Amino acid sequence: MQKIDLKTHYSNVEKKSDEWAGLLFDSIALECHIALPFQPNSKKVDPMLYDLTVVQFDKMLGNLSAILDKASAYAEAKKFDVTILLNSRLAPDQFNLVRQVQIACDTAKLGVARLAGKVDSAPVHPDTETTMAELQGRIKAVRDYLAGFSPSDFADAEARTVSQPRWEGKYLTGVEFAIQHAIPNIYFHVTTAYSILRHNGVDLGKKDYLGAMPYKS
Amino acid sequence: MQKIDLKTHYSNVEKKSDEWAGLLFDSIALECHIALPFQPNSKKVDPMLYDLTVVQFDKMLGNLSAILDKASAYAEAKKFDVTILLNSRLAPDQFNLVRQVQIACDTAKLGVARLAGKVDSAPVHPDTETTMAELQGRIKAVRDYLAGFSPSDFADAEARTVSQPRWEGKYLTGVEFAIQHAIPNIYFHVTTAYSILRHNGVDLGKKDYLGAMPYKS
Repeated sequence: MQKIDLKTHYSNVEKKSDEWAGLLFDSIALECHIALPFQPNSKKVDPMLYDLTVVQFDKMLGNLSAILDKASAYAEAKKFDVTILLNSRLAPDQFNLVRQVQIACDTAKLGVARLAGKVDSAPVHPDTETTMAELQGRIKAVRDYLAGFSPSDFADAEARTVSQPRWEGKYLTGVEFAIQHAIPNIYFHVTTAYSILRHNGVDLGKKDYLGAMPYKS
Repeated sequence: MQKIDLKTHYSNVEKKSDEWAGLLFDSIALECHIALPFQPNSKKVDPMLYDLTVVQFDKMLGNLSAILDKASAYAEAKKFDVTILLNSRLAPDQFNLVRQVQIACDTAKLGVARLAGKVDSAPVHPDTETTMAELQGRIKAVRDYLAGFSPSDFADAEARTVSQPRWEGKYLTGVEFAIQHAIPNIYFHVTTAYSILRHNGVDLGKKDYLGAMPYKS
């Protein structure tokens, strides 16, 4: 990145013309510190909200898929039908593994669609999966859908109003929805899927949940 | 907010002096679109990273505290020692409830401290809790610590390099650490604590995990 010594730059500007220097300062201050961050109609892209949802949800669904692969391998090694794991749950009134995966997928798909203002065109998945192959297909379909988004789809996401049918007309702002609803929810369902399998003996660890880290040295 | 019509502004600038207009454009472009977002020494505050960690971690620790209160009430109603729940786990080689709560607390405390560059002054908790009262005290201590942070502590958080002893000298950027490590981790441990209790019959639902939503109508 090109670096510029702004102090020297401004100092030179002042030397040449005090009046213009003042104008320069005012313009930069208005543009950078007041207008840009809060301009409601600006098309500023928020890469962090995109990274927090599209990129990270895709990563978590990939981790979930790999966790389910471990469950399939475990069932095969122990010679039992993996459907037993798919129908397992941690409490009699809690959703089973199939439903946890379906909800994790919907949280990713609809969370991103709502933030981008594209919920009406999101693909519909009718929750009919009963086999591991179908569940993996559901995960893949949602990851393919997420791949169609880019940071520019999130230009208005922070301030967008987000609602759901069950909220009875109430809404959250996009950033509230992301931070307090979509993000905690996807981690809840991936963790619960993980815990159902861990409880049933599948050899899983925290790394399976977190996935690879982009460590630098 | 004061609005400025930049096109008119620039046009006037050009009329007065083409040379200075060019300088003005270059300065604004450099400041706003190149320098500001990536300038490592800038004091730009990132309220979203603060909200994602300090505010939301505090909320989740509050939710966890309320979940533990429900566990205490359940043990009292069923007339068994709540310590049985504290020592429960979902798999023989997984951490028990006490350890899940301790790690959730450390994830919040150290996650925020690392992002703010204050890990050396973070309070030390030696993981000696064995009772529910002590666990609740640990949660309260961490929430009190979080309350001491403000958005300005996160001015350099995005680009800060974050490391942990077990990473053997490797590091993540602050934003990678927040999105891919600290945030997934705290939700993992709060969800696991919730699941241990749910599995043992405590009457919990998703709302206990998510907490109150700032719905607007």
